[in-house]
Amino acid sequence: MRQFPAPIQKAAAALGKLPGVGPKTALRYAFSLLRLPSTELEILSHAIAGLRNITICERCKMYADQTTCELCRQTNRDDSTLCVVAESRDIATIEASLAFKGRYFVLGGSLSPIDGRTPDTLNVAALMRRIEADKEALKEIILAFSPDVYGESTIMYLARLIKPFNLKITRLARGLPIGADLEYADEVTLSSAIIGRNTA
Amino acid sequence: MRQFPAPIQKAAAALGKLPGVGPKTALRYAFSLLRLPSTELEILSHAIAGLRNITICERCKMYADQTTCELCRQTNRDDSTLCVVAESRDIATIEASLAFKGRYFVLGGSLSPIDGRTPDTLNVAALMRRIEADKEALKEIILAFSPDVYGESTIMYLARLIKPFNLKITRLARGLPIGADLEYADEVTLSSAIIGRNTA
Repeated sequence: MRQFPAPIQKAAAALGKLPGVGPKTALRYAFSLLRLPSTELEILSHAIAGLRNITICERCKMYADQTTCELCRQTNRDDSTLCVVAESRDIATIEASLAFKGRYFVLGGSLSPIDGRTPDTLNVAALMRRIEADKEALKEIILAFSPDVYGESTIMYLARLIKPFNLKITRLARGLPIGADLEYADEVTLSSAIIGRNTA
Repeated sequence: MRQFPAPIQKAAAALGKLPGVGPKTALRYAFSLLRLPSTELEILSHAIAGLRNITICERCKMYADQTTCELCRQTNRDDSTLCVVAESRDIATIEASLAFKGRYFVLGGSLSPIDGRTPDTLNVAALMRRIEADKEALKEIILAFSPDVYGESTIMYLARLIKPFNLKITRLARGLPIGADLEYADEVTLSSAIIGRNTA
């Protein structure tokens, strides 16, 4: 890479910070950027610099550009349901489903003590304060974590912690995803789908 | 994505310009950048803006930050061999092999009329002028293109064009790559490896 002009080397080194981007892909990205008109380079450069203005919403811990995020500022949402998710981006996924109109809270990850993600490093204390503060309005807490080992232990941990509030505590349904082939479904999923069967 | 603060949306939209990066990956990249310290964001942002200063070397058509590139400015290279490559990044690959100490010329792609890559859109005329200008020193032209259908037709086309200069015209050897298993070699490669066999 020494052969390339310094600006290309610098761009490739900086792009190598992106997740899953090694030196070869970083160089490919740098070369592809060279083909963009300089106005587009400026847009990208500004957009990246603009990320410095992102803060964390004080109510739900989601990324925000003001002290509270857009979703917390919306007044037409159902205050009786709080959906707890691992990451900010999970909110986008759930919002895209159009199936939920309540409030959100971002835990900041799933529990995984071996990776250093213990309750103190996550927003567990802030979640408890939020539930305590909103307990008049709240009726249900949805623990919307992925059905993997980390998500399951987070659900178990939080459910026990929230129990004293006497709220309905729910989790996302497990079952066959749309388009799945019964033949290739694993036993745990299939067993969940049978237990949770609905009237047709 | 509407739910995210504008800076995140802008960064994701801009990162979506990278090759092979769709909206989901772009959003993942934007989120990962949020975790970087703001000094690193600034480095990346500056590095991308810095790509506007890249020009094309007037001698070899490689990317450069001055009128001629670093390789063309080096005085200790062999002026009798000119290696013609498709893209600037091929130079990095060849330089990394340490097997070549001559000069380079970037054609700007392989011939592919169906994709609009005809001789006029590539640096064919500039290559001819370069050979004409250097014909006293030049002894050999290496046509270092990939052994695919586009590379092969480019080699055939250029070889015929360069023939009147009475120079040695060569191409990269075809054969088994290091670590290859004879059993899985395709017939064309194997046939090339047999024809081009060396004394052991």
